[in-house]
Amino acid sequence: MINQNKIKLISSLNKKKYREQHQLFIAEGEKLVLDLINSKLNISEVFIRDNWNGNKIIPTGITTTHTTEQYLKKISQLKTAPPIIALCSMPKKNLADINFSNDLCIALDDIQDPGNLGTIIRLADWFGIKNIVCSQNTVDVYNPKVIQATMGAIARVNIHYTDIEELLIEQQKQQVPIYGTFLDGEDIYSNKLSPSGIIVMGNEGKGISPAIEQYVDSKLLIPSFSTNLDKSESLNVSTATAITLSEFKRRI
Amino acid sequence: MINQNKIKLISSLNKKKYREQHQLFIAEGEKLVLDLINSKLNISEVFIRDNWNGNKIIPTGITTTHTTEQYLKKISQLKTAPPIIALCSMPKKNLADINFSNDLCIALDDIQDPGNLGTIIRLADWFGIKNIVCSQNTVDVYNPKVIQATMGAIARVNIHYTDIEELLIEQQKQQVPIYGTFLDGEDIYSNKLSPSGIIVMGNEGKGISPAIEQYVDSKLLIPSFSTNLDKSESLNVSTATAITLSEFKRRI
Repeated sequence: MINQNKIKLISSLNKKKYREQHQLFIAEGEKLVLDLINSKLNISEVFIRDNWNGNKIIPTGITTTHTTEQYLKKISQLKTAPPIIALCSMPKKNLADINFSNDLCIALDDIQDPGNLGTIIRLADWFGIKNIVCSQNTVDVYNPKVIQATMGAIARVNIHYTDIEELLIEQQKQQVPIYGTFLDGEDIYSNKLSPSGIIVMGNEGKGISPAIEQYVDSKLLIPSFSTNLDKSESLNVSTATAITLSEFKRRI
Repeated sequence: MINQNKIKLISSLNKKKYREQHQLFIAEGEKLVLDLINSKLNISEVFIRDNWNGNKIIPTGITTTHTTEQYLKKISQLKTAPPIIALCSMPKKNLADINFSNDLCIALDDIQDPGNLGTIIRLADWFGIKNIVCSQNTVDVYNPKVIQATMGAIARVNIHYTDIEELLIEQQKQQVPIYGTFLDGEDIYSNKLSPSGIIVMGNEGKGISPAIEQYVDSKLLIPSFSTNLDKSESLNVSTATAITLSEFKRRI
């Protein structure tokens, strides 16, 4: 059974403040929880519905609490409570472990939408990017909506939060190339791209902020092929990230 | 003033059945409505908040009804009612107008998520794709969530609904190349891609259905660069579409 204190704790984890305090977050649904169980993430406890016949897939050694649908509804952040919810420990990550001179990394400048952050983490996973560095104002990666949108990729990509301006200053001194996409940049398809460095992606509405833009040495443009005269198109940050990572990686 | 019958009509447009019956849909918010006003779409009427100071941007010739915030809330599909909502006529489109032998088109096989369809329309706009053909089970393009997600691109891309299996049979007879992305396809980066043809993108969970797969002559793979052994990654359909269109267009 699940007790009232545990329900209170888990419900509190929809707020960043309490996630930070307890260093815990939740993941919901069979596919996602199984992905996390089979990863190097530390699962503190899983809660499963009493009569759920999927319980055999949970390995021994994972603390498992059976509960009713009613209680799962209380702790779920989804519209329909899934039969399995996991309480997970936040992984420890150290910015100093990233070798910017050898690896390709993404820096996010104030991404606000949880779906976009989740999709970018999935893209990083697909393209073999091990680290994403987020500005302090980027949406919290342990927000339940972000966790759901990563589809398990959260277990395979390290997400760091820091002052990205300071980071860029420091890495520029080390001759690490810094890229970003802009509407007045140079054609990404013909521009020279290095196998390592930092790719900055900007906020949904404002793009890359002027404070950050000054450290970008290579401004890249994803060219439009539109023939509309009344065009006012833009790409969203997830699809721009997809195209940018595809271009960097296909040429290695 | 806005009368009760008009409120009832507009509220009914959150259902596909009534949108089809009246051949009308709604668009909300300043940026989106202005984009549509400045396009070839036919705007039936705009509703604006009495004290809104943005009303000067609406060109003469557009039927404009002033109303209160309270009434805008009644007709809005958004959490927070914007100061401007437009009632728009569905554009007439004819599948027979598409020249599949000369143009690159997208065919969508049962896309379910309104955000994905909206994003794919934005991508089509960016990459100069004039037509998207959707299966009958694809989410309705005039669903308010799709319209919002297109960010105005809805005015510049023609969206058709048809039996895409029949379409593919017919176009294959005409030697129109048919492409699709699959996890067991051939590397998109090294595969030959033609400047015209049909690119099929599949459902979020199931991918391209077997009934449709049999007509795809070129199965393409977007390769993963992940080095994780416990990988179970996939790309979502919007980001896969972004990378696929980028590859087709950059080589023209």
